[in-house]
Amino acid sequence: MDNSKMNEKTTEDLEKLRGHIDNVDQQLLHLLRKRLDLVGQVGAVKHAAGVPIYAPEREASMLAKRREEASKMNVSPQLIEDILRRLMRESYLNEKDVGFKQVKTDLGHVVIVGGKGKLGELFSQMLRLSGYHVKSLDKDDWPNADAIFAGAGLVIVTVPISITCELITSKLSQLPESCILADLTSVKAKPLDAMLTAHKGPVVGLHPMFGPDVGSLAKQVVVVCHGRDQDKYQWLMEQIQIWGARLVEADAQKHDKAMQLVQAMRHFSSFVYGLNLYREEADIDTLLQFSSPIYRLELAMVGRLFAQSPELYADIIYAQRESLTAIGDYLENYTQALELLKSGDRQGFIEQFEEVANWFGDFAPQFQRESRAMLQSVNDMKAG
Amino acid sequence: MDNSKMNEKTTEDLEKLRGHIDNVDQQLLHLLRKRLDLVGQVGAVKHAAGVPIYAPEREASMLAKRREEASKMNVSPQLIEDILRRLMRESYLNEKDVGFKQVKTDLGHVVIVGGKGKLGELFSQMLRLSGYHVKSLDKDDWPNADAIFAGAGLVIVTVPISITCELITSKLSQLPESCILADLTSVKAKPLDAMLTAHKGPVVGLHPMFGPDVGSLAKQVVVVCHGRDQDKYQWLMEQIQIWGARLVEADAQKHDKAMQLVQAMRHFSSFVYGLNLYREEADIDTLLQFSSPIYRLELAMVGRLFAQSPELYADIIYAQRESLTAIGDYLENYTQALELLKSGDRQGFIEQFEEVANWFGDFAPQFQRESRAMLQSVNDMKAG
Repeated sequence: MDNSKMNEKTTEDLEKLRGHIDNVDQQLLHLLRKRLDLVGQVGAVKHAAGVPIYAPEREASMLAKRREEASKMNVSPQLIEDILRRLMRESYLNEKDVGFKQVKTDLGHVVIVGGKGKLGELFSQMLRLSGYHVKSLDKDDWPNADAIFAGAGLVIVTVPISITCELITSKLSQLPESCILADLTSVKAKPLDAMLTAHKGPVVGLHPMFGPDVGSLAKQVVVVCHGRDQDKYQWLMEQIQIWGARLVEADAQKHDKAMQLVQAMRHFSSFVYGLNLYREEADIDTLLQFSSPIYRLELAMVGRLFAQSPELYADIIYAQRESLTAIGDYLENYTQALELLKSGDRQGFIEQFEEVANWFGDFAPQFQRESRAMLQSVNDMKAG
Repeated sequence: MDNSKMNEKTTEDLEKLRGHIDNVDQQLLHLLRKRLDLVGQVGAVKHAAGVPIYAPEREASMLAKRREEASKMNVSPQLIEDILRRLMRESYLNEKDVGFKQVKTDLGHVVIVGGKGKLGELFSQMLRLSGYHVKSLDKDDWPNADAIFAGAGLVIVTVPISITCELITSKLSQLPESCILADLTSVKAKPLDAMLTAHKGPVVGLHPMFGPDVGSLAKQVVVVCHGRDQDKYQWLMEQIQIWGARLVEADAQKHDKAMQLVQAMRHFSSFVYGLNLYREEADIDTLLQFSSPIYRLELAMVGRLFAQSPELYADIIYAQRESLTAIGDYLENYTQALELLKSGDRQGFIEQFEEVANWFGDFAPQFQRESRAMLQSVNDMKAG
């Protein structure tokens, strides 16, 4: 920061040490290259054998071994774990270049209805990388729908939530009975009902719990709501696992209830938070200057919402009538808590806080540990 | 995941490759150890010369060089940058073992009022590592206050916000005039006024923008609100920079206004979010199962609040009367936005969204990029 402070000797010593560090970093780069190549070879072997790329047990045991070795060398176990996890992410990304094993080789082609949307494109890409023939069907393609559907073994619906059910009902009732019908909508009960009514063959509802900007499906979650003839689409479950994702089976109603709390309410309260900053004429630059890592993170989580499509959020919020109830309940709790604050009843606030803390139980300290790790990595990113 | 699928040849090939990977990882560990040692030596040289440990320009130019070298070797530049940033964090942590240069060698001792609090302990530790003699003064020590203050060159107040001003006014009006009086409170205007009134000598208000659980002050922000006789406490500013922190000078009123938005409101809305989950009888296990990285992160940010002291949060919220206004404004915006939703005016919602998005401007995509990197590292942490 203040080089004028350094005398010649200091500068010389530092330059020499930095030369050594440069040297170590060169070796580090070579080692990273080598490790990525080796893991690439593992991927190729797994690909040929059709084994999923993500192997949680192997990963856990490898990390445990490394942590132990690190301890012996007086290197922090968390350091080597963090570095290896980062490397694994890179390797998962590279898996895509190798392609994936095709589980079902006699399927016929796949039609993605809404294939030009971002999530549709991601699934198209994954399916193509696994050797499937994929056709896209978008708004303008309906006149040729019969030709596109002819011979399809799997139809995946991924259109805006607001038109999903109507589209299924009105356009997908004539699919061949052997064809699998699936959807990727973020609500599940109604689309699943619509699919079961419109189509006589195998039906499954999927909700990929990630945005289309993930580089790899490794470790990502896909919620599965079974519809009909599970044995007929079992291969698709295996295929998704080969991509590295984890399947979570769920009841459609239970899933939707959780999504009201998870998605709709959280999106809405982030939206209001952004709206509030705007109306308060906050100066984002100043806020960022004053921001601790935790607040920078929260600001980023709110700001990211506004980089995305308003239609998407409107759809998610309007998708379930019940979301409005959840959003309204939050408002009520906010109002009550504010009244408690205004009354100056500090002790009452503390008691309510403790009540909620008790309810969180062991999750609270667990979340604190988790978020500490996240905050540290946010701080790492700071350019200064 | 499904080892039964693998034939003997596959298993053999994988074992062999994993042996190679183990080997590379051993070399990696040795290289990490070596790099940490070299950076430790840099720290020792800097320590001797009294140069701050965090050198943003050097860091940026080193990273740029590595990224370029990585590109040439077909290694992702972001990979090497992430790994080096993680390594730098480790090195900053290790700095503590070396200690820091003492900028002011003829100070007399330091008294930390509230030294047994977590933030007080952190500052005690940093000051001791820099060669200062530090005395702690807590609730029970007031009978001996005269002896503890006698000869002090610096008094730092870090007690609960609710009693800060009163304590300054009633207990700190008899300090030697040459003594520096500073505080670490998260609001600044009132404590600064109180210090300027109670004490005739040098006064400075500080707000460390980080929790006491940071391992190192490197890259952390300390807000500085100047009080009186800046030249007398200039050394303290240098000392804090030597610890690696970045100083942000601010007007106390402006700082407090930002904190109403940053701290009080955000804490309160996280509190209500936790309260809401509790009242809705949400099942955290289920929520986590369904959670995408972004929601897991948000849940962690809420949950972490409840692992902490309710008194601390009550203090922060009650510290500024104006916070209640900010919290009330948010409620109003929430209510209005909910009415818009209930009216079914989808277009109105979209227009309001776009209005806020325009206001965020370039920050929205910037936050999206930032949060994407964070979310990836959250996903890296998943054990499966």
